[in-house]
Amino acid sequence: MYNEKFSKDVSSFFRSPVREIFKRVDLNAIYSFAGGYPSADTFPLEDIKQTVAEVIDKYQGKAFQYGATQGVMELREAVARRYGVPVERVQITSSSQQGIDVCTRVLVDPGDVVLTSSPSYLGALQSFCSYRADIRGVAHKDDLNEYRQAYIKTLDQVRAEGKQVKFLYMIPDFQNPSGESLTLEERQMLVGLAEEYDFLIVEDSPYRELRYEGEHIPTMYSLSPDRVIHLGSFSKIFAPGFRLGWAIAHPEILDKIYVCKQSLDLCPPIMDQYVAAEFLESGRLDANLAKSIELYKGKRDLLLGLLEEYMPAGVRWTHPQGGLFLFLTLPEGFDAVKFYDTALDAGVAYVAGEFFHPDGSGKNTMRLNFSFMTKERITEGVKLLSKILP
Amino acid sequence: MYNEKFSKDVSSFFRSPVREIFKRVDLNAIYSFAGGYPSADTFPLEDIKQTVAEVIDKYQGKAFQYGATQGVMELREAVARRYGVPVERVQITSSSQQGIDVCTRVLVDPGDVVLTSSPSYLGALQSFCSYRADIRGVAHKDDLNEYRQAYIKTLDQVRAEGKQVKFLYMIPDFQNPSGESLTLEERQMLVGLAEEYDFLIVEDSPYRELRYEGEHIPTMYSLSPDRVIHLGSFSKIFAPGFRLGWAIAHPEILDKIYVCKQSLDLCPPIMDQYVAAEFLESGRLDANLAKSIELYKGKRDLLLGLLEEYMPAGVRWTHPQGGLFLFLTLPEGFDAVKFYDTALDAGVAYVAGEFFHPDGSGKNTMRLNFSFMTKERITEGVKLLSKILP
Repeated sequence: MYNEKFSKDVSSFFRSPVREIFKRVDLNAIYSFAGGYPSADTFPLEDIKQTVAEVIDKYQGKAFQYGATQGVMELREAVARRYGVPVERVQITSSSQQGIDVCTRVLVDPGDVVLTSSPSYLGALQSFCSYRADIRGVAHKDDLNEYRQAYIKTLDQVRAEGKQVKFLYMIPDFQNPSGESLTLEERQMLVGLAEEYDFLIVEDSPYRELRYEGEHIPTMYSLSPDRVIHLGSFSKIFAPGFRLGWAIAHPEILDKIYVCKQSLDLCPPIMDQYVAAEFLESGRLDANLAKSIELYKGKRDLLLGLLEEYMPAGVRWTHPQGGLFLFLTLPEGFDAVKFYDTALDAGVAYVAGEFFHPDGSGKNTMRLNFSFMTKERITEGVKLLSKILP
Repeated sequence: MYNEKFSKDVSSFFRSPVREIFKRVDLNAIYSFAGGYPSADTFPLEDIKQTVAEVIDKYQGKAFQYGATQGVMELREAVARRYGVPVERVQITSSSQQGIDVCTRVLVDPGDVVLTSSPSYLGALQSFCSYRADIRGVAHKDDLNEYRQAYIKTLDQVRAEGKQVKFLYMIPDFQNPSGESLTLEERQMLVGLAEEYDFLIVEDSPYRELRYEGEHIPTMYSLSPDRVIHLGSFSKIFAPGFRLGWAIAHPEILDKIYVCKQSLDLCPPIMDQYVAAEFLESGRLDANLAKSIELYKGKRDLLLGLLEEYMPAGVRWTHPQGGLFLFLTLPEGFDAVKFYDTALDAGVAYVAGEFFHPDGSGKNTMRLNFSFMTKERITEGVKLLSKILP
C-alpha cells in the first residue's frame, strides 16, 4: 500500500491558492477577479482552424512526429525575428511556466538565494520553493536610490551569510500581481547591481505586448544580453491552451536547459508550434493582438472607473499601463485570506495578495484580474465586492 | 557575463546520445535504426484535420483557455474507460517522459535508490540521474528463481547500506531497449518483492498496445493498484507530436503530482487533449492502431528475416512480440560506442547498448528500431550494417 514514507519531503512544495479556488468553484458561476485568464473572446477560432489545416497540408507527418528539443526551427526563427535576437539564443518552452521551472532547475541548488520583487508571481515562488531555494523578496520604493539601497541591504546580508544569489526574478512589464512596471532607470540600476554583485536576472515577460498607454521600455535583456534570461509566452498574445513560450538567453545557459528538457519532456508539442509560427509570420497574431489590446484597455478603464465610484474610502489601487491585473490595498487590519470565504459565499473571487509576498506580508492586499470577465460582469462584480467589504 | 559558477552542479545530468545524434545528422539522410520514432505513415492526417475542426466547433474558446492541472475531464474519462480504472486515478501528463520525471520529482531525494532493469530506457535513467538518484540495475535471468535472487541480492545490499529503495522502474511490455516482455510469473514475483521489501513500482508502458503476436499479459498495476504507478502514452498509438500521456495511480500519489505539475507547466495543452479524447471515444484511435500494428508487424518480420540472412556469425538478437525495438548482441570485445563513427560515416545509425546499462556494461550491444524506416530502407540498412560489422 502506498504510504507517506515513499514520498520525499514535499513540505517545500506549496499549493497554488488560485488552482485550489478553481477546484472549489466554477469560474463561470461567480464573479471572478481571480486567475490570470485571457478573455476567450480574443481567441481567433476560425483562423486557428484554418491554420491547423494549412499546417497539416504543409508539414504532413512532420507535424506529428517527435521534434527538436530546442523547438521547431520555424518557430525559433519567427521568435528570433520578432524580438531581434539570433536564433541560437531561442529555446521554445512548453509554457512560460516551464521556462521558470527549468531556469530554476539548472541554476538553483537547495539553499541558493533567489531574489524577487515583493509581491511577485505566485507560480514562480512555487517553483523556487519546490527546488528549496531561499527566496528573498524586496519591496518596491518610488525613490530610485532608496530602491537601490533596499536591494543592496539584501545583497550584503546574503553575502554576510556566505550564501550565493543565483538570480533575480523580475517581471518588469505590468507585473503580476501589481500591474506596475519598472522604469528604464530602475532596470538599469538592477542590471548594474547584477554586474556589481555578479548574479543573473530571469526577466519574465508574459504581458509586455499588452500595453494600453505610454511607451515601450527596453527589456532588461536588451540592457545585458549575456546576463539576463528573457522568458516570453504565447499565452497572453495568442492563447494559453497551446502551452507555448520561449526563453532567450546566452547559448551556454540554453545548452543546460536543452539537456534538462531532454529528460523533462523531450520536446514541445509539434503541431502547436507550427501553428504558432504560421500565426506569427502571417501577421495574424499581430492583427489579433491589436484587438486584444483594444478589448483589455476598455476593461481596464472600466474597472478603474468602477473602483473610483464604488470602493469604500481607504482603499487604494494601482493604475497599470498594461497587462491583466491591478492590485488593491485595503485598510491596515483587513485580512484578505480570512475574508475569502465571505467573498466566495457572496459570489465574488479574487486572489489574496499575501500569497504573492515571499515573507507572508501584504495581508491587506488583493489582486484583481480585468481580462477574463465581460464588462457587464466586471461591473456587477465590483458593485458586489464593494458592498461586502467592511 | 554568464559563467559556469552560476550553474548548479549539473554533472549529474547527462546528455541523451540519441538526441546528440539527431543534432549531428539528418535522420532522413541516413539509414536510421536509432531513435524510437513511429512511422509517419501511421499518422491519420485527414482524420486529425477533421477532428481539430470538430473540437473547435464543439468546445469553442474552452479549447484554447487554461485548463485543469489534472487534464481535461473528457480525456481523463476516456482513458479511465479504456483501461477500466476510476477517473480520479487518472492524471494527464505532457508526454510520458514528463510522467517519469514527475514521479521521480515527487518521490526521490538525492541518494535514494531507484531499481531498474539492466538495460533500461535511457530517458528514464537521464531523469533519475538529474535528481541524483542512486540507480541499481538488475539484469534479467531466464530462470524465475535466479531472477528473484538477483533482485533480493540487490535489495539486501541496499538495506545493508542503510539506503531506501523508492521505486522499481520497469517496462514490462516490449521493453526499451531489448523489446522483451516480462512473463506473468515475473510480474507477480516483482510485485511480491515490492510488498515484502516495501517499495513502489513505476510501470512504464508506452508500447503495450503494439502487440504483434501472443496474448496480452496483465499489467503490474492490475496486480497491485495501490503500489504501482502506471504510465501510458499517446506517442506510439496516436502521434508523439501531441506530447500527451497519462499516469494511473493511487489518488494520494496523484495529488503530489498535481501540486508538482502546478509549478511545472500548470496544465497539458488543451486542444490537443480534446483531439485525443475525440480520437479515443470515436473509435478512430483503435482503427488507426490496427493499421499501425499490421505495418509494424510486417517490419519486425522483415527485420528478423534480414538479420537471419545477412548478420555475421556470432551476432544474436531478441525476438520481440511487439513494440518498436530489438536488441543485438555482438561478439565479446566489440565496442558499439567506438564503432559509431564508422557506422555514421557509412550512413547507418543505431543506439549503442551501453547507454542503457546503468553500470556501463553491454558494450557489445546495440538497439535497432524497426518502426521508423520504410521496408526498403530497413532492407538496405541491414545489408549495409552487416557489411561494415567486423
